[in-house]
Amino acid sequence: MFEAKFTNAALLKKIVEAIKELVSEAPFDCTENSMCLQAMDGSHVALISLKLDIGIFEVYRCDRTIALGLSLGELSKVLKCSKSDDTLMIRFEDSEQDMVTFTFEDTKGRKQDITLKLMDIDNEHLGIPDQKYAAVVEMPSTEFQKVCRDISSFSDSMNITATKSGVVFSGSGDSVTNTIRYTKDKTADEDDKDRVDITVKEKVALNFSIKYLTNFTKATSLSDRVRLSMCDNVPLVVEYDLESNGYLRYFLAPKIDEDKEGMDE
Amino acid sequence: MFEAKFTNAALLKKIVEAIKELVSEAPFDCTENSMCLQAMDGSHVALISLKLDIGIFEVYRCDRTIALGLSLGELSKVLKCSKSDDTLMIRFEDSEQDMVTFTFEDTKGRKQDITLKLMDIDNEHLGIPDQKYAAVVEMPSTEFQKVCRDISSFSDSMNITATKSGVVFSGSGDSVTNTIRYTKDKTADEDDKDRVDITVKEKVALNFSIKYLTNFTKATSLSDRVRLSMCDNVPLVVEYDLESNGYLRYFLAPKIDEDKEGMDE
Amino acid sequence: MFEAKFTNAALLKKIVEAIKELVSEAPFDCTENSMCLQAMDGSHVALISLKLDIGIFEVYRCDRTIALGLSLGELSKVLKCSKSDDTLMIRFEDSEQDMVTFTFEDTKGRKQDITLKLMDIDNEHLGIPDQKYAAVVEMPSTEFQKVCRDISSFSDSMNITATKSGVVFSGSGDSVTNTIRYTKDKTADEDDKDRVDITVKEKVALNFSIKYLTNFTKATSLSDRVRLSMCDNVPLVVEYDLESNGYLRYFLAPKIDEDKEGMDE
Repeated sequence: MFEAKFTNAALLKKIVEAIKELVSEAPFDCTENSMCLQAMDGSHVALISLKLDIGIFEVYRCDRTIALGLSLGELSKVLKCSKSDDTLMIRFEDSEQDMVTFTFEDTKGRKQDITLKLMDIDNEHLGIPDQKYAAVVEMPSTEFQKVCRDISSFSDSMNITATKSGVVFSGSGDSVTNTIRYTKDKTADEDDKDRVDITVKEKVALNFSIKYLTNFTKATSLSDRVRLSMCDNVPLVVEYDLESNGYLRYFLAPKIDEDKEGMDE
Repeated sequence: MFEAKFTNAALLKKIVEAIKELVSEAPFDCTENSMCLQAMDGSHVALISLKLDIGIFEVYRCDRTIALGLSLGELSKVLKCSKSDDTLMIRFEDSEQDMVTFTFEDTKGRKQDITLKLMDIDNEHLGIPDQKYAAVVEMPSTEFQKVCRDISSFSDSMNITATKSGVVFSGSGDSVTNTIRYTKDKTADEDDKDRVDITVKEKVALNFSIKYLTNFTKATSLSDRVRLSMCDNVPLVVEYDLESNGYLRYFLAPKIDEDKEGMDE
Repeated sequence: MFEAKFTNAALLKKIVEAIKELVSEAPFDCTENSMCLQAMDGSHVALISLKLDIGIFEVYRCDRTIALGLSLGELSKVLKCSKSDDTLMIRFEDSEQDMVTFTFEDTKGRKQDITLKLMDIDNEHLGIPDQKYAAVVEMPSTEFQKVCRDISSFSDSMNITATKSGVVFSGSGDSVTNTIRYTKDKTADEDDKDRVDITVKEKVALNFSIKYLTNFTKATSLSDRVRLSMCDNVPLVVEYDLESNGYLRYFLAPKIDEDKEGMDE
């Protein structure tokens, strides 16, 4: 028997909206202490890794490890039925092998049960090796979303150059060059939600597909801050923290092209 | 001579928006004490019945019974010209047999006259027999709108089962079952706008086309509450009260199919 | 060397949105005291004249007269990268003959440079003769926008009739006549933002293409007020004041047709 209750259905709704365009179906791996999802996007370019720790749930009970294979399109339609303050209980009974039930409840006696058929999904688990990163940038997630949108107006790819003095996002089109600079602000308060934190051991200058980065920013509403971890020849990690009890991470390999040459200082 | 003045043009605008997709043209029957419209939808499945009592108007004068045949599409365009606090005067002069004038006025000296040509519309009046209903559910209109939207995400039809203990709306798709339950709340205050009132003499379990029900909920902004009146083998009535001086009623016959079998308790 | 700094990038953004559908590319003529743009629309029916006086800028320096030829579509994309309170610096260096740089800056250390390639645009300057107008109507720009929208619902053209007692906008379609009247309000306070000022030396009754007028009202957000200047056989001027330091003017020749005959009093 498996039971997991969200105090607010909106959290899972936002998570599903943030990944459903990249991944059409995936297994939610439920264990004693967490609910995880890991999947490549349809064209096998980006990897998504979601972790919901037990602490994020109001109620959590998982008697044995199970994988709930779900269509994210259907799941999105289910979650759109929730009202803003509804609680959400997810329930799977061993006796009903191929069904999972989502129950929304408000404080006024309204109760909505949606039962969804499970899918059989091949689960190829990719090990993600521990990695030390040469540069880590932490910034407001809305700011990163805007950077991606601005660069995508003129360009197919985005250069990210991080040095000890700051970080530069840039892209070029036929007749336009777009460059956005953040200087390391040594005076910014730790509590300043708007600050851009830049930790650089070694300068990096990498180039990424703007289409994927823009897609990742669908997770913006999940967290005030986003963390970009970079290293040469290793996938970029774009990470959104989930109420300090889990994360949504996107991995994307850099493009190998000449564009970034021009970014050297 | 006919004159009818609305203190606020928005009321008629909302009414027309709520029926224009079902009915493309119809006669407004004006008598000494009220303005009425009754029409079948284009595919002759649903019936609409609108009644505006004299009390709803700021000014009302109708010297002789007349039928103002109007295209609801044109009328909608006319009413979209009104500003939020405009008054609306509708005027028909016997001397101008085929024209009706809509005058919007604000408090700042702006006056807008729109003259519309009347249409000749065959007026087949359907008698609506008085009916006793086995079950009546009264609920917030926005709540009913949400029920229709949720069910329509997965299903073409909606079961409504009303018993002494509560009301259940449900629908099923290929891999999904969606069930929304409201329990009879005996403690709810009469003045609680959110309460769901359920009056059941005899249990009913009926099945309706979700497409039509969704269309009826375009009337949601007209009234805080909606009343569903049901009885076996008789059309459902979905009724919106109009400022206690009239109503907008939609009638829809139940579907005869096997879907509802599964709903029996 | 040319430098012009806007305290708020939003001003230029609104201007470009207000003209880019009529004019796809145009030269910004920069002189010692002002930045101007003058262009016919693509079908050579309307003329646009923009003037930004030196006083509108936070910084302005123009060593020699230059014409910055720009695609307004590209410029619009550039300006959409600005955030609501960003400053905008436009910079052109003689050493980089074909590039102009737009720099957005916020108060938090974020800096965005967008470099755009200049275009070679034939600059046919049309002299606009000084004109005395028979009638001038000044009204809230949102009110004029609504008039255009309402008339365009039913008609391809708009009659404007201005007399000493008021101004009438009207249009007719197949089965509809739409007439909007503003009476001269002698008591209205000079400071009343909602007042309609009507100055008529001689009655005018003119007819214009509603499509163009509607297009002009894209400038509505630039100014609370709009001024319509009219005279027989002379183009109408629709003028939006820019912070008392410039203007955006649209010129449109009246249509010669029978429609307006019916408007005579």
